[in-house]
This record gives sequence, C-alpha cells and structure tokens, in this order.
Amino acid sequence: MNPLVYLLLPEVREMVAQGDSAGLREAFEHFHPADLAEFLSLLSPPEAEVVFRTLDQPTRALVFETMDEDRQVELLARIGPEGMARTIEEMSSDDRADLFQRLPARAAEALFPLLARADRLDVKKLLAYPEGTAGALMSTEYATVEPEMAVSEAIAHLRRIAPRKETIYYAYVTAADRSLVGIVSLQDLILARPELKVREVMKADVISMEADADQERVVRAVEKYDFLALPIVDREKKLVGIVTHDDVLDVAQEEAAEDAYKMAAVAPLEDPYLRTSFWSLARKRAGWLAVLFFGEMFTGTALAHYDEVLKEVVSLVFFIPLIISTGGNSGSQSATLITRALALGELRLRDWMKVAGREVSMGLALGLLFAAIGLGRAYLLRSGWEVAITVSITLLGIVIFAALLGGLFPLLLARLGLDPAVASSPFIASVVDVAGIVLYLNVARWIVF
Amino acid sequence: MNPLVYLLLPEVREMVAQGDSAGLREAFEHFHPADLAEFLSLLSPPEAEVVFRTLDQPTRALVFETMDEDRQVELLARIGPEGMARTIEEMSSDDRADLFQRLPARAAEALFPLLARADRLDVKKLLAYPEGTAGALMSTEYATVEPEMAVSEAIAHLRRIAPRKETIYYAYVTAADRSLVGIVSLQDLILARPELKVREVMKADVISMEADADQERVVRAVEKYDFLALPIVDREKKLVGIVTHDDVLDVAQEEAAEDAYKMAAVAPLEDPYLRTSFWSLARKRAGWLAVLFFGEMFTGTALAHYDEVLKEVVSLVFFIPLIISTGGNSGSQSATLITRALALGELRLRDWMKVAGREVSMGLALGLLFAAIGLGRAYLLRSGWEVAITVSITLLGIVIFAALLGGLFPLLLARLGLDPAVASSPFIASVVDVAGIVLYLNVARWIVF
Repeated sequence: MNPLVYLLLPEVREMVAQGDSAGLREAFEHFHPADLAEFLSLLSPPEAEVVFRTLDQPTRALVFETMDEDRQVELLARIGPEGMARTIEEMSSDDRADLFQRLPARAAEALFPLLARADRLDVKKLLAYPEGTAGALMSTEYATVEPEMAVSEAIAHLRRIAPRKETIYYAYVTAADRSLVGIVSLQDLILARPELKVREVMKADVISMEADADQERVVRAVEKYDFLALPIVDREKKLVGIVTHDDVLDVAQEEAAEDAYKMAAVAPLEDPYLRTSFWSLARKRAGWLAVLFFGEMFTGTALAHYDEVLKEVVSLVFFIPLIISTGGNSGSQSATLITRALALGELRLRDWMKVAGREVSMGLALGLLFAAIGLGRAYLLRSGWEVAITVSITLLGIVIFAALLGGLFPLLLARLGLDPAVASSPFIASVVDVAGIVLYLNVARWIVF
Repeated sequence: MNPLVYLLLPEVREMVAQGDSAGLREAFEHFHPADLAEFLSLLSPPEAEVVFRTLDQPTRALVFETMDEDRQVELLARIGPEGMARTIEEMSSDDRADLFQRLPARAAEALFPLLARADRLDVKKLLAYPEGTAGALMSTEYATVEPEMAVSEAIAHLRRIAPRKETIYYAYVTAADRSLVGIVSLQDLILARPELKVREVMKADVISMEADADQERVVRAVEKYDFLALPIVDREKKLVGIVTHDDVLDVAQEEAAEDAYKMAAVAPLEDPYLRTSFWSLARKRAGWLAVLFFGEMFTGTALAHYDEVLKEVVSLVFFIPLIISTGGNSGSQSATLITRALALGELRLRDWMKVAGREVSMGLALGLLFAAIGLGRAYLLRSGWEVAITVSITLLGIVIFAALLGGLFPLLLARLGLDPAVASSPFIASVVDVAGIVLYLNVARWIVF
C-alpha cells in the first residue's frame, strides 16, 4: 500500500468517531478496492464496520471479496446476514464459495436462505469440489456464445452480459448440451467481419482441464500457455467454470510457500505469520520437530555403541559435527534441487537413473573436495594421521550417500503418490546423521585400531 | 504436454528424414505454439531446424518466443541471422530483449543490423534496464489512446493496432508528452456511449510502477490488484511499458525457486536441473557448501577445547548430534517463516520486536518440550542424572537461541538491504552448532564436575 495512506489513519478515525459519512465517502473515493480492504484491516472491527457501511453497494462487494477471510467472517457477524446478503450475492462466485467454506455452520445457515436461488445453487455446486482441485478454484462467471451466432450478435451478447462476468475477453463456444467446442477472444471478434459465424472465427482446439485435476496442474498449464483463463470441464467435457490468471498467481504463491514450509519441517500456515495464534504455530512447529527429534535419538544409540572407541581416541569426537553437517547440507541441496525440478515439471519419474548417476558423480566430486580440506583440518588439530584419514574417508562416503539419498528420496515419494516436499532437508539430515556416525566409527575401528 | 504427443515422435522423425514438409505442416496444424516449442525440444537440433522451416512466418515467431533461450540461440545459429530476422522482428519485445541478452556477442552483432530501425531502438531501450527490475520485464507493445478521442474513435483505433499489441483489453490514456493520465478497459469502452470522450470513461487513478522498481514489487502489486498488466513509467511519470500477467507468473515462480535454492545453500540455477552442466552445478553447490564447511570447523575447535571433559564423561558425546540438530531445525523453521513472511510482504522491518518476542516464547515452549523428552532419553541411555540434566538445560537454551537467531537474522539482512533468503537454514544451523557445543560443555562443567 502507498505509505501515505497511513497518514490518513488518524483523520479517518476522527471521522468515524464523529459519524461523518460524507467525509469518509470523499476520503475513499479514489481508493482501489484492494487498498480499501487493506485499509480496513488497519482499523478496529467497529471502525471497519462504520467505514464499510458508508460504501455504495457495488464497491462493497469489490472490497469485501478482497478482504482476508477472517476479516470477512468478522464483518459479516457485525453487520448481520440481512445487511450483507446483497453484497454476498454480488461477490465473484469463487470468493463467495471460499467464504462459505470458512464460515461457522451457524452463520452459513443464517445467510444461505437469504441468497437468490441461482446464487444458492452456485455456492452448493462450487463447494462440492474438494480443496486443491481445479473445481475448487474456478469461477462460474464465464461468458459463453453459440457457434451459429453471427460475430455481430456475439459482440452484442457479450456487451449485454459483461457486468455479470469475470471476463468477456474470452468467450467460450458451447454446443446445446453445454459441451465446449471452441474459444474466441473479443479481440478476434472485433477484428472479424460482423456477418461471419462464430464457428468460423473460433479456435476449435481448446486446451481445458477437468474439474478434479490437481491445482498444480492448473498453474503449470496457465504458466505454459500464458492464458488469461483456463476453461474447466466435467468428465463429459461440459464446461463448468474457468480459472482466471489472478487466482492462478495466488495458488502459485501459496504452493511455493507450502513447499518452503515443508522443506523446513513446518506444517503449512493458513494465515500470515503474525496473525497465526501462538499455540496454533507451536503445534505446526512441534509436530515435525518431535518426529525429527525422535529420529535423531538414534545418533545417541549409535554413539553409545562405540563408546570404547570414543573413550580411547577422544579426538574422533571433534569431527562428528563437521561430518554430519556436511552430509546433511549436501543431502539437502540434492533434495531441494529435485523437489523444485519436480514442482516445475522439469523432471519425470522415469529420469531416476539419470538423477542417481548425476548425484553419485556430484557426491564424488564434492566429497573429494571436502575430504581434502578435512585432511588438512585434522592435521591442524594435531589429531594424528589415523584420525585424519578416517575423517577424509568418512566425508567422501557420507557426501556421496547424502547426495544420492537427497536425489532419489523425493522421486520415491512422488512415485508413491506422496508430496516430494515432505522429503524435507531436516528429514534427510536425520538419516544422514545416523549413517554418518555409523560410517565414521566403523572406518575409525578399521584404521585407528 | 499431452502424453499422446510423444506417440507422434517416431512419425515426425520419419517425415523429417524424408523431407515431407506437407506432412509436417499437417501434423502440427492443431498444435498450440507452446506445445510445438516443447515438441521441438524433444528433437535433435537438425531435426528441429527442418520442422521449424516448414512453419509459416507468424507461427514461427509464436513458437520461437516460447522456446528455451538456449534452444533459441542454437536454432538461430543453424538458420542464420538473415533467415531469422523477420521472426525476431515479430517476437514480443520483452522476449526479444531477453534473447539479445543471452546471445553471444558475435551473433548479436550479426543479427542487430538486420532488424528494422524501430525494433533496433526497442531492443536497445529494453536492454538498458538491469535484470531484476520492472524495466527488464516489461514489453513495449501496449496500446495507448488520447483523452480527447471519442469512445467510438478509440475502439476503431484499438481495432487497427490490435495485431501489433500484447493486449488491447486495457488501453493507457496518455497526454501529448506521453505522461500516463488514465486507463480504460476495452470492456468499459464497448459499454460506454460512443460519443463520450475517453477522459469521461477512463479511470484517472492509475496504479503504476517505476521502471527501476524491483521485480518482486511488480509481483506483489499484480497479486494484490489482480491486474492483467501493470503500467511502467519513468521518473517523469511517462509511460514506457507494461508488464503482463503471464510474465508476472513466471517471475513469481522463478523467485520462489531462487528462495528455495538459497535456503538450501545452492546458488540459483538458470536452467532446469537436468540441463545444467555438471561442472556448472558443482560450482553452484560447492561454493556455499565450502563456506558452511569452514564455519562448521569451529565445532571442532570448540570440542577440542573441552577434551578433558569429554574424556572424563564420554556419555556426554552421545547427545551432541541430538542437541545441535534440534537447535538447527528450530532455527531453520524460524528463518523460513520469517523469510517467507517478508517475501509475501506480510511483515515489516519495524515488527522486529514482535518477532523477537514471539520467537523467544516459541523457543521456550518448544525447548521445554524437548528438554522433557531429552531427560527421559538420557535416563534410558543410563547416562546418570548429571548428564540428563545437562542435556535438558542445553536443549532448552539452544532452542530459544536458535528460534531468536532464525527469527531476527533475516530481518537484519533485509535491514542491510541484503536478500533475507541468504539467511539459509544451513547457515543458521552452523552458528547454532557451535553455540550449542559451547553451551553444552559449559553446562556440563558446571553440573557434572
């Protein structure tokens, strides 16, 4: 938001306190609805209610659908279902369905009967698609034309329905049974001779996606084809909705954040960091951390197994953190590279042999580098040549193992239909830690004794 | 891509071998240009050249601009600058500038004089903006109208210039000095009475961005306002370009990948994993890994300093990996949460006190949990109560320290104008490892002896 807007805050609060509706209306006249929604989030709920009530009906819907869902629920509770029914009817269908998803059962039941019948059916239909699918993302406000319409008729039709549609820049050409037979852009229509039929100017090879497709596939398709909107069809190829470019960008950002959280062993957040409650955040963090903690306990078991060796040559201990962290870091590099390549569709499962070959060679190259530096380091710590050689050999071995594990584990997860991002770096690191200790102390037994 | 397309591959290769241009043209008739570009990437360079030569001129530009930049350079080298000049003139201006950026100097010099003068100036202008700025992303094929035009004139004008523009769905209203005074959508134009002036139907409060703004700000603005395209202006508010929604999606994906790589201590890749050369990938991995390796060496120094303690009570060693990895994991959770919140604009630098407070409390809660489990674990390993208490206290302390460090370090980097994602989890882990060891062995000295 424009930082200058913050300067308005005291003035707006003053006007709210005085009930100066005219002043408020004037202050917000030149605001973009998204800025207005952000501004409302800076106000207290009662203040936000006062400001919201001064807005005209069309602006209300535009502002309301841009607000955070928590804020929507709050405002709805304050103004009441009767006062909000028209605003909610005017929201775009996908945002409205998301609101009903979030609403407490009691509030949803109070609101639902107040909507027009068409809107009620629309909400029901959209809520039927599970989260994370194309169907849950789509909007039902797409424009359709018929193949036998003249171009001039189609333009007139689009002009008529424009106010109720998300976009009229693409019109979907549907047959009588609602099956999708073509697509035509407004640009093509206004460039075409008016007496031509729609079917003569439309593109018949429409790229569409089924409503139960994963939302990641929607992102990849829009990314590849640069679409303004992707048509969504049911199993009989009938058009049921469109997913627009702005929702695709939001999903891409969400998915990236989710992957980042998973890679750091945090369960994904639904709300911004500062607005997630302390205990909810604690739960999201403690869960995976505890799993990793229990996994890491095996390092203690492994070390206890070799306590005679450690007691004998205490300088072996000095290199344990170096060995396990170098292994962990190499493994986490590989896991991230492969997880990212899978997410971007750059890698297919059948490439696993290539990945294995690359990661083993990479582990060899990196491992030799660190084996050499480790040799020098052990010499500097005056640990004796046996320990130095033990450290070197272990570094080489663990870096190769970690790169291979980090490279293949995400592919294995994907093969099993699981999310490869769960092969989080800390998880790989835990396995590598235990393996590193066992390798290290076995090499030590062999070389030192 | 449609997997069925792979079935076409042998047939296409056969046609290429026989020089069957008509057959090739027919096979690709119903392909989307993006699919065609992907298909070409499956062919060998000589085969791709043959197929490309069978395409008509407008399709060539659409396919060529969708190809990977490496493939573009390759194809250009095969066909030669004369054969490609027209295709390159017809590319969209932003993709063309990116190509010149990538082209070897000699190839660029051969190609440049063959372009029309307007295109040469355009390339020069776009190349002047540094990578990562709004200017480097923008396209110059935007549509403008004048404020005093009648709506009917404006529509006729847009229709005339449509073939040469990226989009005519938004027209930018510019004064005689090219300064941006408004924006009008094609939708608004076709809904308005034809005799009105453009200035009467335009929106005068245009949200725009300066050409030297960081590309992340472009992504955030488009995400917030759901724009099809964001107008880009120079320092005198004159319109110089637009960034379209499809380029914004690409940048958002790139930035997310870069952050993921940085968090895993890999220098960002320019090409897909399998197409990055072995030694280039090795360099990108070895650099950060070596920095971390040297950092981690201090753990050895720290441990060597306490060798008497370790020799005396060898069971202290059993818990070293558990302590440092639990600290590292907590720190990496915090660093990821804060880095992500900064990237999404959810957090401002001035929130650092809130972050510090939250992370200390979170560290306390998580630390107490793991201190309790650690106590049980030490008891099971029969380490004696002194070691058990030492482990517990250290876990509590290191988890608090790690959460605080992971929370504040990204904010500090951002404050210094650096990229917070460089506060990668492995980096935090290295610092936490050394701190954990020093804390652990000092507590041990105090409790055990």
